[in-house]
Amino acid sequence: MKLENYVDLMLPAIEEELFKTVGWVKNFDSGDLYDLLTYHMGWSGDNDLPAAKGKRIRPLMVALCTDAAGGDWRHALPAAAGVELIHNFSLIHDDIEDNSPLRRGRPTLWKKWNIPLAINAGDAMFTLAHLAVLQLENITSSTIALQALRLLHETCLRLTSGQHLDISYESRDVLEIEAYWPMVQGKTAALLAASTELGSVVAGCDRDTRATYREFGYSLGLAFQALDDLLGIWGDSALTGKSAESDLITRKKSLPVLYGLSVNSQFATRWKQGSIGIMDLREVASLLEEEGAREYTQKIADQYTTQALNLLSAARLEPQAGAAIQELAHQLLRRRS
Amino acid sequence: MKLENYVDLMLPAIEEELFKTVGWVKNFDSGDLYDLLTYHMGWSGDNDLPAAKGKRIRPLMVALCTDAAGGDWRHALPAAAGVELIHNFSLIHDDIEDNSPLRRGRPTLWKKWNIPLAINAGDAMFTLAHLAVLQLENITSSTIALQALRLLHETCLRLTSGQHLDISYESRDVLEIEAYWPMVQGKTAALLAASTELGSVVAGCDRDTRATYREFGYSLGLAFQALDDLLGIWGDSALTGKSAESDLITRKKSLPVLYGLSVNSQFATRWKQGSIGIMDLREVASLLEEEGAREYTQKIADQYTTQALNLLSAARLEPQAGAAIQELAHQLLRRRS
Repeated sequence: MKLENYVDLMLPAIEEELFKTVGWVKNFDSGDLYDLLTYHMGWSGDNDLPAAKGKRIRPLMVALCTDAAGGDWRHALPAAAGVELIHNFSLIHDDIEDNSPLRRGRPTLWKKWNIPLAINAGDAMFTLAHLAVLQLENITSSTIALQALRLLHETCLRLTSGQHLDISYESRDVLEIEAYWPMVQGKTAALLAASTELGSVVAGCDRDTRATYREFGYSLGLAFQALDDLLGIWGDSALTGKSAESDLITRKKSLPVLYGLSVNSQFATRWKQGSIGIMDLREVASLLEEEGAREYTQKIADQYTTQALNLLSAARLEPQAGAAIQELAHQLLRRRS
Repeated sequence: MKLENYVDLMLPAIEEELFKTVGWVKNFDSGDLYDLLTYHMGWSGDNDLPAAKGKRIRPLMVALCTDAAGGDWRHALPAAAGVELIHNFSLIHDDIEDNSPLRRGRPTLWKKWNIPLAINAGDAMFTLAHLAVLQLENITSSTIALQALRLLHETCLRLTSGQHLDISYESRDVLEIEAYWPMVQGKTAALLAASTELGSVVAGCDRDTRATYREFGYSLGLAFQALDDLLGIWGDSALTGKSAESDLITRKKSLPVLYGLSVNSQFATRWKQGSIGIMDLREVASLLEEEGAREYTQKIADQYTTQALNLLSAARLEPQAGAAIQELAHQLLRRRS
């Protein structure tokens, strides 16, 4: 079976599990909180496009990892739903924290309703994630349910710690390149690591195997983030300044920028002079590339990609699901490039 | 043993459990997220007054109920900490949602730092609450830990549903009196009900006993809220308009106001004319009292108080802890009056 066959098989089941879980809010709510949640999940509202749902990469990873570790992927559905709901809860709050008006081609939740209702809807989504994972008790065992919950809670602490750094960095002029890693470890790598590890937890793997799955997801997350940072400056839509997608315009302290600041040459001087407009984009991006930031970032991304793929080989996966996971990893790393 | 002896015994242990739990964030965070959490908990910052901690009524209730149900109250500490952290998480987010600058005599978290950092700190506090309750696994059993977690998550769904209604009501001119109950059931009663029920869960009580504890906390919460609404208009500080504490000034759609609107006479006319200033407070409050709103609200509060105390008798508590719970309930209902 190829990745696309797995996707055809797993995605409808994941979507059904998510829909069922979000529906629980109707047991408690007499208002329209449910409408906010289904809007954010891409199930309702104007422009109800498939794109508004997101790609569900994390829950697919959970289910695939359970399968690859010799478990029944259907038993992983509560954990898969939990991870996707955590991801979506964090998007709802991040969009408020970053003042982002658009998400997946539509107005963000806070923009469509208001900030108070959106903060609260995020809290409800967070709660639903935990309730989803709790369902593992009935499908697997108490032990697995408690292991999964602990893993999820610790992941959420990592997420909030990473997000705290990200927000804090905005107001800092000078930032060492070392400051980058604790931030992206929390913001990006932690939830991918939780997805792959949860897959192995549901399959009942031992500590060592769980660690391999976790580290695979972790390396994959770091490779993904480094590439995302690279494309945020030298990707096609970044260079043309389309929809202000360049990290140079938003002044995001991404890996190439921190590298450029550490070189402390022409780019650093230009950066400190203040905002970079659409007309300056190509010139400043070239400057940064000449100073070695692009090569450096690509090298980091390649290192973590290799590390992730080595860990995948070491995990001795069921061959078919293993190949599908590898394909999904490649898809993740090649997106937008 | 009297309530004050229980408080002297339990409160330091509760505080230690809370402090230990919040400290976990240091294992994950390299920034100053911990400082935001300890500030909100009343352990650090300027004006580090005892008042800044809050009264810890809910965790005391958890521990007392475990004792009253024949369990070891020390086993209830993780659940007690969990409930208090949920309470504090919801305060952090409510203060942003309600645009409140002050909490327990100090600037609120969002006011002292900023909204993005405060939303995220609330999310971290929410996560710590779950991690606290998860500790029950090591102290009691997997079954009790999972029961407690399910109860906590369902309570959080009730909280967010109640908060959603509260925010939604702000923009509605007309509101039926029936709309009041689903809001306060979620906002106030749910967490007190969870506190009393959690106490019985830790003690290993059966379903029926758990239900009695839950309903006691629930009735107590509704009585508390009705009294709070009454004092929000006719309490001393409300009538003098000190620190704009009157619900008439803030235009809170509390029980007396909804009653007055349902009578649809002079008060309703005045309310619809727009904002009520400090100079009008006594007159409008008198108008509302003449139309029967104060008597109605007092009657509701009395009904729920009686119901709570009857449930307390029905629960066949250990006599000493039972008397202390009764005293705590009376303290709660007599505060500010």
